[in-house]
Amino acid sequence: MEKENMSEENSLQIKRHSLSHVMAAAIKELYPEAKFAIGPAINNGFYYDIDFGDTKITTNDFKKMEKKMAYLIKQNLKFEQREENINEALKKAHDNCEIYKEELISDLKKEGQESVSIYKLGNFEDLCRGPHIDNTNKIKAGSFKLHKLAGAYWRGDENNKMLTRIYALAFEDKEGLTKHLNLIKEAEKRDHRKLGKELDLFCFSDLVGPGLPMFTPKGVVIIDELRKHIEDVCRGYGFEKVITPHLAKIDLYETSGHAKKFSDELFRVSSIKGHEFVMKPVQCPHQTQIYASKQRSYRDLPIRYMESEKQYRAEKTGEVGGLSRVYAITVEDGHSFCTVDQVKQEIVNMVKIIKEFYSALGLWGNHWVSLSVRDYSHPEKYIGEEKDWDTCERMLEEISEEMNLKAIRKEGEAALYGPKLDFMFKDSLGKEIQIPTVQVDFATPKRFNLVYTDKNGQEQSPVMVHRAILGSYERFLSLLIEHFAGAFPIWLSPVQVKLISVSENHSEACHNISDKFKSENIRVEIDDSNETVGNKIRKATQEKIPYLLVIGDKEADGKMLSVRERGSADTKEISTTDFISKVKEEIENKKV
Amino acid sequence: MEKENMSEENSLQIKRHSLSHVMAAAIKELYPEAKFAIGPAINNGFYYDIDFGDTKITTNDFKKMEKKMAYLIKQNLKFEQREENINEALKKAHDNCEIYKEELISDLKKEGQESVSIYKLGNFEDLCRGPHIDNTNKIKAGSFKLHKLAGAYWRGDENNKMLTRIYALAFEDKEGLTKHLNLIKEAEKRDHRKLGKELDLFCFSDLVGPGLPMFTPKGVVIIDELRKHIEDVCRGYGFEKVITPHLAKIDLYETSGHAKKFSDELFRVSSIKGHEFVMKPVQCPHQTQIYASKQRSYRDLPIRYMESEKQYRAEKTGEVGGLSRVYAITVEDGHSFCTVDQVKQEIVNMVKIIKEFYSALGLWGNHWVSLSVRDYSHPEKYIGEEKDWDTCERMLEEISEEMNLKAIRKEGEAALYGPKLDFMFKDSLGKEIQIPTVQVDFATPKRFNLVYTDKNGQEQSPVMVHRAILGSYERFLSLLIEHFAGAFPIWLSPVQVKLISVSENHSEACHNISDKFKSENIRVEIDDSNETVGNKIRKATQEKIPYLLVIGDKEADGKMLSVRERGSADTKEISTTDFISKVKEEIENKKV
Repeated sequence: MEKENMSEENSLQIKRHSLSHVMAAAIKELYPEAKFAIGPAINNGFYYDIDFGDTKITTNDFKKMEKKMAYLIKQNLKFEQREENINEALKKAHDNCEIYKEELISDLKKEGQESVSIYKLGNFEDLCRGPHIDNTNKIKAGSFKLHKLAGAYWRGDENNKMLTRIYALAFEDKEGLTKHLNLIKEAEKRDHRKLGKELDLFCFSDLVGPGLPMFTPKGVVIIDELRKHIEDVCRGYGFEKVITPHLAKIDLYETSGHAKKFSDELFRVSSIKGHEFVMKPVQCPHQTQIYASKQRSYRDLPIRYMESEKQYRAEKTGEVGGLSRVYAITVEDGHSFCTVDQVKQEIVNMVKIIKEFYSALGLWGNHWVSLSVRDYSHPEKYIGEEKDWDTCERMLEEISEEMNLKAIRKEGEAALYGPKLDFMFKDSLGKEIQIPTVQVDFATPKRFNLVYTDKNGQEQSPVMVHRAILGSYERFLSLLIEHFAGAFPIWLSPVQVKLISVSENHSEACHNISDKFKSENIRVEIDDSNETVGNKIRKATQEKIPYLLVIGDKEADGKMLSVRERGSADTKEISTTDFISKVKEEIENKKV
Repeated sequence: MEKENMSEENSLQIKRHSLSHVMAAAIKELYPEAKFAIGPAINNGFYYDIDFGDTKITTNDFKKMEKKMAYLIKQNLKFEQREENINEALKKAHDNCEIYKEELISDLKKEGQESVSIYKLGNFEDLCRGPHIDNTNKIKAGSFKLHKLAGAYWRGDENNKMLTRIYALAFEDKEGLTKHLNLIKEAEKRDHRKLGKELDLFCFSDLVGPGLPMFTPKGVVIIDELRKHIEDVCRGYGFEKVITPHLAKIDLYETSGHAKKFSDELFRVSSIKGHEFVMKPVQCPHQTQIYASKQRSYRDLPIRYMESEKQYRAEKTGEVGGLSRVYAITVEDGHSFCTVDQVKQEIVNMVKIIKEFYSALGLWGNHWVSLSVRDYSHPEKYIGEEKDWDTCERMLEEISEEMNLKAIRKEGEAALYGPKLDFMFKDSLGKEIQIPTVQVDFATPKRFNLVYTDKNGQEQSPVMVHRAILGSYERFLSLLIEHFAGAFPIWLSPVQVKLISVSENHSEACHNISDKFKSENIRVEIDDSNETVGNKIRKATQEKIPYLLVIGDKEADGKMLSVRERGSADTKEISTTDFISKVKEEIENKKV
C-alpha cells in the first residue's frame, strides 16, 4: 500500500517538474529576455527561479502566463531528451546569455562531466536530468495554477542577485487542485493567530516582546481545562504533580547533557550581584533532583512525577510567531522512575493515558504509531548497553502486539538513550501531528547517580521512562484552534452558554438565569447590550459559543428556554432543568 | 492602651540594660583582663560585646557568670550616676586599658562634649547615658538567662577586632522568661525548614542552586489546594485568571517604574543569539498589557485579573534560605481595572475575599487593619492628584466604618501611588504576619496609557486596584507550616487518611478500602510494610496525618473502621460510610 502511494506520488512529482518546463517555455515566449535558474518540483507543485531583468512581475501577470501554458500544452508537445557535449552546451548557454545555466554547466564540467542532459519542449530547451512525462497531453486541463511570488537569491546566497521565484500548485487533475485550494482557504480561516485574536484567547505586547504570549481569561480557561484533564487522567495511573523553578545552575545541564545539546538555545541569567543561572530548556533534570532529594527503596518505586511549567528556549528571533514557535513554552512533562521489571507496565499505562486523553478530543483512531528503534548499522550513535536496548525494543514490540497498536518499526528513529513509541494523529485538515511519545531511558539516572535500594540492600539505578501527552500547551492550543476551527468541544469552550436579552427589560432575567448556570459550574456570559437581537446572535455565532439562549418575555421566569445550538439556525424550546442536565452531561462526558 | 504598653515596655528595656551592666560587673570579677565595648538592651533581652583577650569563652562558662550575677543582684547594689570631666574619664579609661571605652570617649570629645555620664554599680564603673533602675533589688530571681554566643566586629567593621558577644534573655520575672523559652523551643520545633524536610514538602538541590525550591508531590498538594481555594473565592467576585510569561523586555519595567525600583534585584536574560530580556520582578505590568490588548468600553469594566505565577528577584546570595527568602517567588496577584465610581465596591469585594480566605484558615478575627495614608507634611513623596488622594482616603475610611474593620490610620504608610488597607494577622506563636493588602493606584494606568471609552465616547484612564491575598505561596507555606506546626487542616493535608495494615494478610483489604476513599476524592496512603503496628502508628503520627485507620481482621471486610484522630491516642469504631461522610464534610467545610 505504502509502495503504491510512493509510485503515484512519484508520477505526480514528474508531472510537476514537467510543468515547470512548460511554465519556463511559456515565459520565454512572453519575456524573451528572461534568464532561467532552477525549477524543481516541490510539495503540492513546483517553482522556477527566473531573472526578469528590469521587468517587474506581479501576480497580475499570472493569467497571461497560465494562458500561454495552456496553449503550449494543447500542442501535444513532446519532451525530447538528448545528451550534449558539455563544451557545446556551455557555448550555447553563453551565446544565449543564459548566465545561470552557464554557471551550472561550468560546475558540472569542473566535476569532470563530459556531457549534459538537455530536454527540448517545442522551441524551449533546458538543462535537465529529468525524468519527464513524454508529452504535454498527459497534463489535464485545470490541474495547475500559478500561486505566489517570492524573492530568492541565486543559489540561496544573499551576496548573489535576487531572482523572482514563481510558485505554482499542480495536481493530477482539476479536482485535486480544487481540493487543495479549498484546504488552503480553510487553513487560512482556521489560522490560530487569526482565530486566537478573534476569540480573544491570547495576545502579544510590544513592551513584553515577541515569542512571549500572554494568555487572556478565555485562553486560560482552555489551558486550565486541558491541564485539569491531563492531571486527572495521569493521577489515575499514579502520577503525582511536582513544581520546579525556571532557573538552575548550568551544572544541572552539564550533568544531563542538555548544556551541550541546547547550547545555542540557552537563555543565560545574571544579576549585578553576580548570580549566574540558565533558564531550563527541558523539565527532566529538575525532576531527577526531586527523586534525588530522599533515599528511595524498591518499595517506593515506581515514582511518577508530572509537571506543567514553562521552559525557555532562545529560538531565532526571525522564527518566533503565533503560538507555534515561542520562547516561553509550557510543557506538560512526566517521568516514571522504576525498576527494569516495572518498565513494561509503566509504558502500558502511558499508552493508556495517551488513548484516554486523545479520545476525549475525538482524535484517537485516526492515528498510527511508530516503534522507533536503533539504526542497527550504526550502534555507535547510541548510548547504553546492547542488552538493555534489545530488552526494551522487544518490550515495545510486545506492547504494540498486546495493545493492538499496529506500530510500524522505524529503524534509526530511536532517541539517543533508548527506543520509543511515537503517536501520529491527523487533524481535521489531514495535517499530521506528532506529539505523544513514550521513551525508555537508562542513561539519565546513571548520569545523575540516582539510586534505590533493592530487596537485598544493594544500590541500583532506576530506569527513567519519559512521556509526553499533549507536549506544550502553546502548540497544542494552536493545533486545537485549527482542528476545531475555534468551535471547541463544550468542555473546553471558554463560554459554554451565552444569554442574549431581547430588550432592556430582560436584562435582570438574564442575570437570574446566569446565576443559576454559574451555581451549576456552567460558564456563561450575558449580552444585554442595546444592539438588535439579530446582531447579538451574529456576534455570539462568530464567538463559536456552543449554546445561545435568547431571553425574552416567554423565558423571563426562567422555566423554559429558547436554545440555539452551535451550527444550527433553529431554535428549540427546552425546560431550564432539562437544559442544565443536558449541558452538564455533555461537559462531564467531554462530548466532541 | 497602646501607650500603657509602651511604658511597660520601656521599664522592661531599662531593666534589660541594667542587667547588661550587672553581667559586665560579674564578668569583670571573673575575668579581670576583660575589656568592654558596648552592651545595649534589645528585643527579649540584652547583649554585651567583650574582648576576652586570649581567653576562649564557651556556653559552659554561662553558669558561672549567671551565678556571679545572682550574687551581685542579692547585694542590693545601687546604680549611681555621676558626670565626669571628659579628660579625666579618658585618662582613667586609658590607665585601665579599657581601649574600647577610650575610643568611645575620645569620639565624644571630638564632638565637643566636655563631660561624660558614668554609672557605678558596686566596684564596676561604666560609661553610660542611662537610664537605669535604681537598685539591683528590682531584678527578680530567675528573670534572665545567658542565651548564646556570637562573634561581632568592633563597631561592625570587619577590619576591626572580632569581639565576643554574649546574648542574654531577660523578662519581668521567671514566668516571663519561661514563657519565652517555651516559645523558642516551640518555634524551633515548628521551623518550616525542619518540618518541610520531615514532611517532605519541598527540597533543594546543589545542582539547581540555593533560593530555588522544588516542590515535591506533598508540597504541591498544599499549594494546589490554596490556589484552588483562592481562585474559587476570587472567581465569585468576578476575577478571571490570566497567565503571563516570566520574561519581558526591559521597556516594560522602564514604563512601569520597576526597572528603577528593582534595579539591583533584576535578573538579566540573554542568549548568544542576541536576545535581551529581564525576568519579571512583579506581575502588574504584564497584566496591564492584557488590558491593553483590546479596546475597552465602560461596559466592560471592572475587568479583574488574577494570576499565580513565579516572579524572580536577585536577592543577596547570603540572604536566601528556606522558603522565606527565595529567588523564585510564586505570587498570587490580582488587579481590578475600573472606573472611579467602581473603586469602592471593588475594595469592598477584596476585603470580603480576604475575610473569606483567612476565615478558612482560622486566622480571621485575630487581626488588625492599617489604613495607610499619606504623610501630609511631605506631599512631594507621592504621585497623583491631591483630589484623587482625598477621595480615596475618604473611601477607605467609609469602608472601614461600614465593614466594621476598625482600621487604624497610619500616616506616611501609603504606597507611592495611593492609600491602602493592610491586614495584620497573628500566628499561633503570636508572631505578626502582614500579608493581605488592597491598594488604589491612579498612576500605573496613566503610565501605560490604558484607556476605556466612557458613555460619551470619550477616552478615560481606568483606576487600577491592586490586591494581595496570600502573597507568595513560598512564604505563605512557610507561615502555614509554622502556624499549624505541620498539622494542617484536613483540606490542606497532603495525606488525609492513612491505612495501616495489622499484618501481611491485611494488605489487600487496605488496597480495597483505599480505592473506595480515592473514588470519593479523599487523599489516602497505605502503610502495609512489615514493621510493627506500633511503629507504623508512630511514623504516621510524626507525619501529622489527620486520620489513621488500623486495618486488621475486624476491618478487613471494609464495613467498620478503627479510627485514630490526630492528637488523640484513642481509637474509635465507626462505619466506613459514616467515616467517609464525616471526612468529606470536614474537607468541604474546610474545618480548621
